[in-house]
Amino acid sequence: MLLNGSEYGTDNCSLMRTLEIVGERWTLLVLREALLGRRRFDDFQRSIGCARNVLATRLATLVEHGILRREPYREPGSRRRDEYRLTEKGRALSTALAALTQWGDRYLADPAGAPIEVVHRECGDPVRAILACDRHGELRIRDLALKAGPGAKRIA
Amino acid sequence: MLLNGSEYGTDNCSLMRTLEIVGERWTLLVLREALLGRRRFDDFQRSIGCARNVLATRLATLVEHGILRREPYREPGSRRRDEYRLTEKGRALSTALAALTQWGDRYLADPAGAPIEVVHRECGDPVRAILACDRHGELRIRDLALKAGPGAKRIA
Repeated sequence: MLLNGSEYGTDNCSLMRTLEIVGERWTLLVLREALLGRRRFDDFQRSIGCARNVLATRLATLVEHGILRREPYREPGSRRRDEYRLTEKGRALSTALAALTQWGDRYLADPAGAPIEVVHRECGDPVRAILACDRHGELRIRDLALKAGPGAKRIA
Repeated sequence: MLLNGSEYGTDNCSLMRTLEIVGERWTLLVLREALLGRRRFDDFQRSIGCARNVLATRLATLVEHGILRREPYREPGSRRRDEYRLTEKGRALSTALAALTQWGDRYLADPAGAPIEVVHRECGDPVRAILACDRHGELRIRDLALKAGPGAKRIA
């Protein structure tokens, strides 16, 4: 998977832009919890265990970037609060989170194995994050090549 | 993609473990550069633009975890130095990096489009990071379910 990257500028790198938003451990853990179905501040806080001000900042960033949206709710006898729901843009991060988790399952899990499995709801088979092209399906890493895309910025 | 996560402990979460190693922006950018073919300290430093001590720390962490390995080289007239090569464990992060980049290409790229494209070396078709099961191939996010894996720790 080689490209002579030195001829191209990296200031518009999509990975870098993604990481500027979600490339922070607490933020990715908030997303993990959101994908696990959590929506409320106290639930996020309990399961992630980070400081409340850190969590509030991370949630605000995710809302600002349209990854989570606020939705008001009111428990009987309490004041109105907001819960946090994944948008389509947020759910689209599932592939990346599954791929990161899968790598951890493979190289870092306890001997007992993965704590959580992603399965196909219909057949129950395990789900894997893979790289594929439409014609040939799953590819090995050595089958990949990188090329300059339409947005590549050639350095003079 | 829901699981009632509250019954399970998250201290063995594979995503968290992955992020403890690579969940830091500079580290993921070092990996991006390694996948782009870069191997030498000065080349990493030039293209990433981070401080040299930060880069040295990140490279040491990646070596420590077996994601990069040091390989000595010597330019004529210079002292011996080490370059950094991806191990199999490191290359296995390609799927996760491709998935993060693909999300950025979709939601954050300039109007011109993605700066870099991953293609199948053989046919030139674009490569996508997808979630799939062996029987049914590519799945949509709403087709997924989460279940407790063999390493799940039930909270009493």
